[in-house]
Amino acid sequence: MWSKIVIIGAGGVAESLLYNLARHQLHPIAIYNRTRDKALALANRYSPSTDVVDQLAKIPLDADGYLFALSDSAIPEVASMMPSTGGTWMHTSATVSLETLTHYHSQSAIFYPLNTFSSHIAVKLEGTPLFYETKSDDALCYLLSLAKTLAVRPITSTLELRRKMHVAAVFSCNFVNHLLTKASFLMEKEGLPFDLLMPLVEETIRKAFAEAPASVQTGPARRGDLITIERHRKELQEMAPDFIPLYDLLSSSILKQYHSSSSLSHE
Amino acid sequence: MWSKIVIIGAGGVAESLLYNLARHQLHPIAIYNRTRDKALALANRYSPSTDVVDQLAKIPLDADGYLFALSDSAIPEVASMMPSTGGTWMHTSATVSLETLTHYHSQSAIFYPLNTFSSHIAVKLEGTPLFYETKSDDALCYLLSLAKTLAVRPITSTLELRRKMHVAAVFSCNFVNHLLTKASFLMEKEGLPFDLLMPLVEETIRKAFAEAPASVQTGPARRGDLITIERHRKELQEMAPDFIPLYDLLSSSILKQYHSSSSLSHE
Repeated sequence: MWSKIVIIGAGGVAESLLYNLARHQLHPIAIYNRTRDKALALANRYSPSTDVVDQLAKIPLDADGYLFALSDSAIPEVASMMPSTGGTWMHTSATVSLETLTHYHSQSAIFYPLNTFSSHIAVKLEGTPLFYETKSDDALCYLLSLAKTLAVRPITSTLELRRKMHVAAVFSCNFVNHLLTKASFLMEKEGLPFDLLMPLVEETIRKAFAEAPASVQTGPARRGDLITIERHRKELQEMAPDFIPLYDLLSSSILKQYHSSSSLSHE
Repeated sequence: MWSKIVIIGAGGVAESLLYNLARHQLHPIAIYNRTRDKALALANRYSPSTDVVDQLAKIPLDADGYLFALSDSAIPEVASMMPSTGGTWMHTSATVSLETLTHYHSQSAIFYPLNTFSSHIAVKLEGTPLFYETKSDDALCYLLSLAKTLAVRPITSTLELRRKMHVAAVFSCNFVNHLLTKASFLMEKEGLPFDLLMPLVEETIRKAFAEAPASVQTGPARRGDLITIERHRKELQEMAPDFIPLYDLLSSSILKQYHSSSSLSHE
């Protein structure tokens, strides 16, 4: 697919978009960011032919697609300051409405890839669900052809659905990562490298998706083994007493799901 | 390595041991289980040449290794009922002492693979950390040669260390799986297949181990975005109000770690 694309933003989402576009021989014609150096670093890394601009008034007006890879709060502000352009405007947020763009430019769409992005980390997007929404046929066709080029998995959705799914994403990404942070603290406290947990965690994830997580739950709370739970609480009292509320609530939640009659004795 | 091995037990750990031994051309001479049918099913699946016995008095006495793949509570009972044998006795529990075996048989060891096991799921053990402990040189040499054959990663450890690490394992495996259970419930409630979350979860895990989980934390609580947190709480009020205590405690825990001054307003 030949397409003139402009990237707006230079954070983690912009970085992964640039990386994936470049992997498919699509080099954006320009990247805009308020801080020029950040955009320049991304262009140098992934697409040296891409122009770097730090004023919205100077972005190319004749691109086919404008990808707003911005924080939720920046999208309305940047949309309001955009010059009048052709092509399709798309933003990548789960939780910002389509109207935030169509208010200024009717050929607009939501282009939300369900994944986790950080600066300095390029995520391969192949197979990632792409939740989209648009009221413009031209925007729809452009978006679907871009999705095909990037080998993502397009799924039409409403704002309401994306917002609800976003909560599931927080449980399975942000909260899972936080539990790994706690586990890594406990390992390092005992002088053990965190990566000893890698085979365990990878098998946990593989099994949860190969079967269903509820059906492969293991551990003392799943077994209703209150003796081991009590011993773990004593270990935590020594190792990291501030982890006990998390340990208790998660154990109780598992006990409730699988042993409706059991509960932690100190509750 | 040529070795005569007896497996004691027929649950998830026994199944993965049989699978991995067979992958390395080691077919146990016998598998013992109180319920004969369970042991027979495993032997048929992984090692048809293996004898199946349902009485401890009938297990071969001349094996090189006896692997006790049993629940924590069954280990002392079975050890006390074992006939007098040669070879090395090994159990696979993180939390049961070495003395539980050496009391009956001095050439004994702990052989604890840090992974997650379920019946009907065969886990490849290559690269899995193997926490071991023994006071017998013969047991040590036998265990290390078995570990080498299975391509696991042997790490010497004490009971105290294994017990503390077991708490980290609960956080990173049992609790992570429970959060995936909650996420899958939320997805299915919106009519979305759970596997849409797979690229997100796999990238979360990849990133946590490639960097460090604390340094790649993302999400509203990481950003201190109390407006999104409040909106998520409202979504949960509609979707699954009983998930709110978990959402609140995990969000508060992240807020505390990264924004020491912030907290949820309703606390």
